[in-house]
Formats: sequence, C-alpha cells, structure tokens
Amino acid sequence: MIESILFDLSGVLYDGDQVIPGAQQAVQRAQRSGIEVRFITNTSQKTRQNLLLHLHSLKFAVEETQLFTAVDAARQWLRQRNLRPFCLVHENIIGEFADFDQHNPNAVLIADAAEGFHYHSLNRAFQLCIAGAPLLGIGYNRYFKSGDQLVLDAGAFIKTIEFGAGVEAVIVGKPSVEFFKQVVASTSARPEHTLMVGDDVFGDVEGALNVGLQAALVRTGKYRPGDEDKVSGDFNTVDSVTEAVELALNNRG
Amino acid sequence: MIESILFDLSGVLYDGDQVIPGAQQAVQRAQRSGIEVRFITNTSQKTRQNLLLHLHSLKFAVEETQLFTAVDAARQWLRQRNLRPFCLVHENIIGEFADFDQHNPNAVLIADAAEGFHYHSLNRAFQLCIAGAPLLGIGYNRYFKSGDQLVLDAGAFIKTIEFGAGVEAVIVGKPSVEFFKQVVASTSARPEHTLMVGDDVFGDVEGALNVGLQAALVRTGKYRPGDEDKVSGDFNTVDSVTEAVELALNNRG
Repeated sequence: MIESILFDLSGVLYDGDQVIPGAQQAVQRAQRSGIEVRFITNTSQKTRQNLLLHLHSLKFAVEETQLFTAVDAARQWLRQRNLRPFCLVHENIIGEFADFDQHNPNAVLIADAAEGFHYHSLNRAFQLCIAGAPLLGIGYNRYFKSGDQLVLDAGAFIKTIEFGAGVEAVIVGKPSVEFFKQVVASTSARPEHTLMVGDDVFGDVEGALNVGLQAALVRTGKYRPGDEDKVSGDFNTVDSVTEAVELALNNRG
Repeated sequence: MIESILFDLSGVLYDGDQVIPGAQQAVQRAQRSGIEVRFITNTSQKTRQNLLLHLHSLKFAVEETQLFTAVDAARQWLRQRNLRPFCLVHENIIGEFADFDQHNPNAVLIADAAEGFHYHSLNRAFQLCIAGAPLLGIGYNRYFKSGDQLVLDAGAFIKTIEFGAGVEAVIVGKPSVEFFKQVVASTSARPEHTLMVGDDVFGDVEGALNVGLQAALVRTGKYRPGDEDKVSGDFNTVDSVTEAVELALNNRG
C-alpha cells in the first residue's frame, strides 16, 4: 500500500541534461493520482536554487517544499552547533556556506568536491579531524554517473578521512536515518506506505529499507547488473521510474 | 627469549634526516650481541638504493640482504602475475616500475603517491578496479610523520578505492602476513623469538602480533599518546628503540 513516493533525482529522473525516457510522464502520473511526492538528493554540485531551475527546465513540476537536499541538511547541522566548517565542497556551492565563519575551522564538511579533492585539501581535513574536529559527510555515496563514466563520489573521500584519522563521520542526506525520517515526516504517509525510488543500491535502497520504507531500484543511472544482489532485504528492481510508479499505483493506499 | 629484531625505519631509527637519539648505538648494540637484525619498511618515497644510502649516511650498518621493503614485495607480486600496473606511486620511485608494461593497465598499484593523489588519478584507479583490475596496496598505513606534521599515507587512499569500487586490496609490506613471514624466514629465529620494533600501532605492532611475533611500540616518530590502547594483545610500549633493544638483550635466547 503506497501513499507517498520519494524520488531520487540524478539517474532516476535525468542523467545530466538528458531526461530518463518516460520520467516526466511517470512523475506527472504519480502527482495526478494523488500520491504525495518528494524529491530527495545527495547531489552537492548544484545549489538548491539551481536544482529547482534544472528540474523545471526538464519539465518536472517540483515545488520548493517538496525538495530535500543533503546540502540543506548539512547547513542545518553545522548551524545548530554553531561550528566553523572547513568545506571540501564543489566550487558551485561554496556560496551556500558563505554565511559561516570559516576562519580557524573546528569542523570538517566533505561533499562532492570533485577537483577540490587533492592531497593538500585531504591532509588539511585529516589534520583537523585528528585534532578533534567532527567530520560531517554529505551522503555516503560511493560513486555517481558523470557523462558516460562512473566517478568517485563524496563517500569514498569521507572514507579516506575516516580511516586515516580513525574517526566516524556524521552523515547527512541519504542514507542517514534522520534525513529519511525528516522527509517522511513532511508527508502524511507512514514509512511503510512510502516508496523510495533510486539508482543507488546502498544510499537509496538499503538506506530506505533501514528506516522501514519500501524501495525500488531502477536499472537506469549508475545502476550496474548485479547491484540488486549487494543488499539484502525485500525490494523491487525495475527497469525505470516508469515501472516504479506503475508498481506504486497498482498498490495504492 | 629474543633471537632476532625487526626494525621499522622511519620514526624508529630516524625522522627525515634526523637520527632518533640513541638509535645508532641501539642498533649497533644489537648487532654486536649476535642478535639477528632486519630492517623492514613500507616507505615508498625512496628507491631501495636510496634507502640504503640514506641509512648508511646516518651511520646505520645495514647490509643489502637485511633490508626488506614493501616496494620490492609489490614488484614481485606484479611480476609473478605478469600484470600491467597503473602506478599511483611517488615520482621518486617511478623508475622502480619502469620495466613493467604500463599500457592498457590491468592492475592498480597504490603506494604513497603524495601529490600524485588527485581527483583524476584516483578516478582512474577506481574505474580500472570496477572493471575488474586487482588492487595492490603498499602497506595499509593510515598516516606518517613528515617534518612536524602527520600526513595521510597510502592506506587512506587504498581505502578510498576499496570503498568506492567495493573491492578488497591485496596488501604487500606490513601488516601483510606473507611479508612478515618472508622476513622471519630469512633469519634463523622462530616467530615467537622475533621482536618487531615500530612506531605504528597497527602496521607494525598489530601486524607482528597477528603473525605470532613479539612487538614493541616506541614513543617516537608518529606515536601519539593513547596509541597503545588501540590494539589488544600482549606487547611493550617503550620510550625509544634504545629501550626496545635493552628489553631484547635482557631476554636473550
């Protein structure tokens, strides 16, 4: 019984500037059916505003309040603790943290910094962490699809620092339990009546299952054959978001 | 009962160009006592030849056959399998792999590449590994001391690729069981009569204990207070290599 769908963005609705075939119609069908929808992403190469513009340019009718991003969760976490972050983030989103004091940092934030990941920046993060700074990670994703290649995502570099410094990161965004709970709480559906649709078998599927959601793994985006065997638990593997929505509509609450 | 001592190099005998006070005398004392000595290192910023020159310039009487390096172990491992490595190694040791065909690589080697670790080189390693290339790591050290700073070592970047690609590296050098066994086999002492002296509680101490050696953790080099609590097992923590040799001589075989 599905009353709400959480859509991952990249790899589920689009790849870069290319809409996944059928994705616009699938989202529209869900919206018209009265199922509640939310859009949740760990992407940290675009600001919230640019994400919304991108979605709208691709003809996805996403409302501002329906979009939940890991970058927002990171801002919130740092703000609540009044921390001065050393930000290993993409140049596109540096502005999202411009209102934080970043002198003499006492926290480390790792997002998808791309070229910003190099020996010196990673050593700086490491040195702050062994001196006691908390490590905050945006998502724990291993890799993502960029053009026709898979490339390392923030999770792999969070792991670099976790292992090097012997610390454990606080993860915001997927698969953080708090993040999923926050998104579900914004709907009127219970977790077990909520379907997460994603292309990352760990961040999307395993994360959702851990919080008691239902989950569908799509065979688009970063999906690779065999991914469905990497996580145990009860979930569906479907060709694309079209089939995921079909599944949800066939199991309406 | 100690019949043989394995000395780690950096942090135990010297820091950069500075001899650890008393280290020359300690090694000499061990050598004159008839205890067998070996020198074992994961360092991958110097060739074997330069390591020997460095040791001799610091007045350590190390014979060529007494030096065991992780770089040699890596060469051997790749050669035995006739592999074409993508080498993420320090510029100083590129020549050590010059006799390998490195076109169209079908293996990944990660050593301490320092500035050679950047987004593109790590992505290349990741992409080869998800395509099935084995991942070979020189040591699994988390960090080392460079000048008066701790900096990330190869282990942290091996972890990046292991997590990103979902693979497990083959580790040569410490704490690999094969490496310790090979060094011990070059002596006439049994493992339980062999003392490993190191400043890395994981690579040196835990590694040695896992193979049934005795171990002493020195409070020099990268040692940080509390390190001795990070590993369980029976080992001594001593002020320096001087005290470690003293301990061995007091427990002569």
